[in-house]
Amino acid sequence: MVTELRTLTYEGDLGSLRAWLAENGTLDITDALVRLEPEERAVSFRLLDKDRALAVFEAMDPLHQQQLLEALRDERVRELFRGLEADDQARLLDEVPATVAARLQAGLTPQQRAATAALLGYPSESAGRIMTPDFTNVRASMTAADALTKLRRAGRRPTRAQALVLPVTDDERRLTGVVDLTDLVTAAPDTRLRELVAPETLSVRVDDEQERAARLLQEADLSALPVVDKEDRLVGMITFDDAMEILEEEDTKDFSRAGGAEPLDQPYLSASVFQLARKRAPWLMMLAVAFTLTVVVLASFESALEAVPALAFFIPMLIGTGGNSGAQAATLVVRALAVGEVRFGDLARIILREMRVGLMLGALLATIAFPLVSIFYSISIGAVISLTLVGICTWASFAGGMLPLIARRLGIDPAVFSSPFITTLVDATGLLIYFSIAYVVMGDQLSGVLG
Amino acid sequence: MVTELRTLTYEGDLGSLRAWLAENGTLDITDALVRLEPEERAVSFRLLDKDRALAVFEAMDPLHQQQLLEALRDERVRELFRGLEADDQARLLDEVPATVAARLQAGLTPQQRAATAALLGYPSESAGRIMTPDFTNVRASMTAADALTKLRRAGRRPTRAQALVLPVTDDERRLTGVVDLTDLVTAAPDTRLRELVAPETLSVRVDDEQERAARLLQEADLSALPVVDKEDRLVGMITFDDAMEILEEEDTKDFSRAGGAEPLDQPYLSASVFQLARKRAPWLMMLAVAFTLTVVVLASFESALEAVPALAFFIPMLIGTGGNSGAQAATLVVRALAVGEVRFGDLARIILREMRVGLMLGALLATIAFPLVSIFYSISIGAVISLTLVGICTWASFAGGMLPLIARRLGIDPAVFSSPFITTLVDATGLLIYFSIAYVVMGDQLSGVLG
Repeated sequence: MVTELRTLTYEGDLGSLRAWLAENGTLDITDALVRLEPEERAVSFRLLDKDRALAVFEAMDPLHQQQLLEALRDERVRELFRGLEADDQARLLDEVPATVAARLQAGLTPQQRAATAALLGYPSESAGRIMTPDFTNVRASMTAADALTKLRRAGRRPTRAQALVLPVTDDERRLTGVVDLTDLVTAAPDTRLRELVAPETLSVRVDDEQERAARLLQEADLSALPVVDKEDRLVGMITFDDAMEILEEEDTKDFSRAGGAEPLDQPYLSASVFQLARKRAPWLMMLAVAFTLTVVVLASFESALEAVPALAFFIPMLIGTGGNSGAQAATLVVRALAVGEVRFGDLARIILREMRVGLMLGALLATIAFPLVSIFYSISIGAVISLTLVGICTWASFAGGMLPLIARRLGIDPAVFSSPFITTLVDATGLLIYFSIAYVVMGDQLSGVLG
Repeated sequence: MVTELRTLTYEGDLGSLRAWLAENGTLDITDALVRLEPEERAVSFRLLDKDRALAVFEAMDPLHQQQLLEALRDERVRELFRGLEADDQARLLDEVPATVAARLQAGLTPQQRAATAALLGYPSESAGRIMTPDFTNVRASMTAADALTKLRRAGRRPTRAQALVLPVTDDERRLTGVVDLTDLVTAAPDTRLRELVAPETLSVRVDDEQERAARLLQEADLSALPVVDKEDRLVGMITFDDAMEILEEEDTKDFSRAGGAEPLDQPYLSASVFQLARKRAPWLMMLAVAFTLTVVVLASFESALEAVPALAFFIPMLIGTGGNSGAQAATLVVRALAVGEVRFGDLARIILREMRVGLMLGALLATIAFPLVSIFYSISIGAVISLTLVGICTWASFAGGMLPLIARRLGIDPAVFSSPFITTLVDATGLLIYFSIAYVVMGDQLSGVLG
């Protein structure tokens, strides 16, 4: 499909291009367009009719939107930008260079400009940045029919937040409740809104974290969540579609960090090779530096390695298994923290659970390893390997379960302490466990060289 | 807060318990309840008024719902179960033992029983399982006022799907379009629905995967997505709240697999230590078996290790860095696949990018490692370590970028090929790269023992 669009674009066959665009849906067109080179995208985009063009534009990432804007005429740019909701306008303004931002804002009415400027005044990652400042608030004393009339007057193309949930406010514009649109339309027209108000009023503060707001909306199954300022005055609404986007972004960030890389903050294929390397280099270097500890540990056990060279053969297996065991624990705890299933107060309980799990897993592996290693090497090496597996798995599960919780407590993203970090930590400490056990079990063979 | 509830429950102080429940919101109560032992939960739960009890029950996981049902009287159980939407009923019926299922269904009307039975007829993980079979369909020839009247008549407590989006159908109940509730309420009452129909009608088939449906709903910013059968007849609606839950579950699954463990399918703290171990043991064992390859590789290079013992010191650092580099690549590609940014067709492009990134990162590390190792050991060992870092990082990024795409093509969950799998693969192959380079660079020191 992309190849088809690319061929048509290269050939400049506008008739066929137009036909292709007419046959495909918004999401398919968007998907195909962003896979073309930035310069090629504008060709097809200009052929879309006005409504479809706005829909495709809305479905793009801010990066792709920016690239497209650079290729279009001023008039078209202003038209597209005006069509976005205020929170999407703010998001885009935040990402484009100042000169482009000025060009975009030129097309807005003074009210629109004030609205996006207000959103940009809130800290990034805050609820204020993703809320829609357009909403239709109602009074508890209104009837259902009044509220519908107010909605109808609010505008011909309402933003979703204007309609999905109606916030009920008092004379000071303080939030006192919410009415769900579905309850409003199914109620008798003369029902007072105070009878329709949801039993609980959930809201977030404008400077709360976006992720917190999004998770609250999800847990409570809300279609829109009111945002209030310090004085509890209503300032905006966060809708489910923005919450879904935030949660996807947050999960992508956690994934990146869990894989030992800084989040890309842009689609994978749009990032250049250099950008990819730059996001990964700091972590890789930091972990490589931490690995020098393993070199030091091994160098200090040189005599043991010379006395029993077979001890070296098991190093990757032992520290690798320890790393995997720690990664399992860390990943589960990081995710449970992210979705709100566990919190710092559960520390003792989690550590106890993880140590028992690590002990069980280590014992299981030891039971398999002991006979095999004893047959191929010796019973004493078999004993060292088995005991090390038990020790390393227990220690790794303990560290993997504990560190993400400590990180959360210290205000660090727990995902940082997932697989690569734990693996590296367990590698150095695992070697100490390994050689300590070796000295205890095989003292007679190693003590000569030690002395 | 949990401690507070637990103390009150133990003390049996019903007055204070009731006061505590009145002061807290649905989500806080749910959160505190599920942290109590299963037997203790029913005590507080019985004190909740009818509406709040249903809200708390709805907010629980199926596992916690089941545990609670077992502790309550038949009449109360039926009342709670009747209060759930059909898709939640089907989900719970699917998880409880057959005897409990019969007890639950006893309280349903024949229509309700038919509706949940129909949902249970669809394969698990299919769109059919999470759709709501209750919806209010309309005709294109109706006016906005007619549609609102039909909605109002549809029931006093409509399910969300009955209202957020109204599916437009023809005489055969085939889906021909959808009208957004927000457009309906803001239109003039005499507007024909055909003027309000959304420009595009997206839908999924009843046997499509849940995840596909949820991602489509998210990408298109829909509040509800129609579900049709093979003949394009409308059979249900999937709402945004169910889609959010599916996406969270799928991301949790990906996280587990990326951490080298099978998904728990239940909240972390509810799983027993034995269940945790059982989900992790298969992967840990499989990877440990794969690690025996590293033992074999190292044993075959025994003479080289004896000739230059310092070569052993760098093993954890080299294979660990390779593993981290591969994990970075794999994690980024797994996530990009999950959110639909890349697909199998991008294989060549991704491999090329990842190899260049790996080369850059390896070269960077080599530049730092060469002088350090040369000073502390020797220039030839410095050369071996640097060249190995370049080779291992390039190879690991290549494997990490490629394997998830191959997995997707073969119908395997790509997340399986994240950190632990790649790390283990790179460990064994990384050693081969290491010793091959050592033989080439330090041939004179190693060839004696080889021959």
